[in-house]
Amino acid sequence: MSNPHAFPEPDRTAVYRAIESRRDVRRGYLPEPLPEELLQRLLAAAHSAPSVGLMQPTRFLVIRSPEMRRAVHHLFQQANAEAAATYEGEQHELYTGLKLEGLLEAPQHLCMLSDTGSERGHRLGRHTVPETAVYSTVCSVQNLWLAARAEGVGVGWVSILSQERLREVLHIPAHLTPVAYLCLGYVESFADMPDLERAGWEKRVPLESVVYLDRFTNDKTT
Amino acid sequence: MSNPHAFPEPDRTAVYRAIESRRDVRRGYLPEPLPEELLQRLLAAAHSAPSVGLMQPTRFLVIRSPEMRRAVHHLFQQANAEAAATYEGEQHELYTGLKLEGLLEAPQHLCMLSDTGSERGHRLGRHTVPETAVYSTVCSVQNLWLAARAEGVGVGWVSILSQERLREVLHIPAHLTPVAYLCLGYVESFADMPDLERAGWEKRVPLESVVYLDRFTNDKTT
Repeated sequence: MSNPHAFPEPDRTAVYRAIESRRDVRRGYLPEPLPEELLQRLLAAAHSAPSVGLMQPTRFLVIRSPEMRRAVHHLFQQANAEAAATYEGEQHELYTGLKLEGLLEAPQHLCMLSDTGSERGHRLGRHTVPETAVYSTVCSVQNLWLAARAEGVGVGWVSILSQERLREVLHIPAHLTPVAYLCLGYVESFADMPDLERAGWEKRVPLESVVYLDRFTNDKTT
Repeated sequence: MSNPHAFPEPDRTAVYRAIESRRDVRRGYLPEPLPEELLQRLLAAAHSAPSVGLMQPTRFLVIRSPEMRRAVHHLFQQANAEAAATYEGEQHELYTGLKLEGLLEAPQHLCMLSDTGSERGHRLGRHTVPETAVYSTVCSVQNLWLAARAEGVGVGWVSILSQERLREVLHIPAHLTPVAYLCLGYVESFADMPDLERAGWEKRVPLESVVYLDRFTNDKTT
């Protein structure tokens, strides 16, 4: 079918390139801060993500202060030590050798939060599944991640931070839920494969093992 | 700064165009099913989303069977009637006039689920915030949504379906969490603005009202 709404082929290719070459960047952040216009373009991309009932629950806290970046790095170290203690033997050795964040190197962080109780959108779409407010914020994260890849900007999601401790350090108001804590910055390079795969922590599974038609059959990933 | 990792300008523009012109499509689905190769490209885009600890928790259930599509539409009707009953007066009238889904028109649906308890990734990144497994699946949704826009394919997220009823109708195994239920298909058009804004349900807020630097000030959206 000829589809008048499809992008021209080079533009489709560009979108797929952003999707395929996006990486979670934990190393090689460069010290030069992102220019304000570039940062605003990334935030605008995030802000135009879908949101349930058009509630636009996402709030963006840009963190440039070295003191606050150090404080969050300290939280990471605590959480990472607790996580490391859950592994044993070879796996413990592998885990402690992983580089999981670039919090001190990246000249800016971005904390994305969700105002899950907001009356904006008049609760449309949230009656049955209130989690959709937080899901809207995660859609914003992915928009930003892809725009950043196109701009040659690295993004790394530091997922193990305790929400409660983050709340204290960043003075997050009670009505906001921290959803994602990201490192953001120019980088030396984008790796060909995910860091965790390169380090031997986990392998990617093929697409066909996770797709079902009309009904479930046995789990094909195990 | 000259950035060797940035895409050339036309490719950056293409990525931003996908982000800005993506819409939640609820009307105007065309009856012709998506070709298998195109569907596979969209699923591959979703599958290459970031996932916590490289756990790749997302499972894809493609629904083409007319019986199952009708059964899910029936679930929508129930949930929608319950939601409508929570509004009064003018807002009730406005709500019942909204078109919120294209479940019967769209020739294929896609249910995206998360295997949140999977041992893949060896729980890396999930010790402190287990919700990151579900967040990984939401990142997949947004990848698919943007790839679909570039392909001229409409996507509509039907967010009000009850997870428990969906579980029964689709025979979802207990270890999988339904995260997103999407309509998918060729469409007559992509609207210039979100349906809910056009219908007068809610307005979008400007970016500057949701961005903070280093510390929170008063909420600027209210």
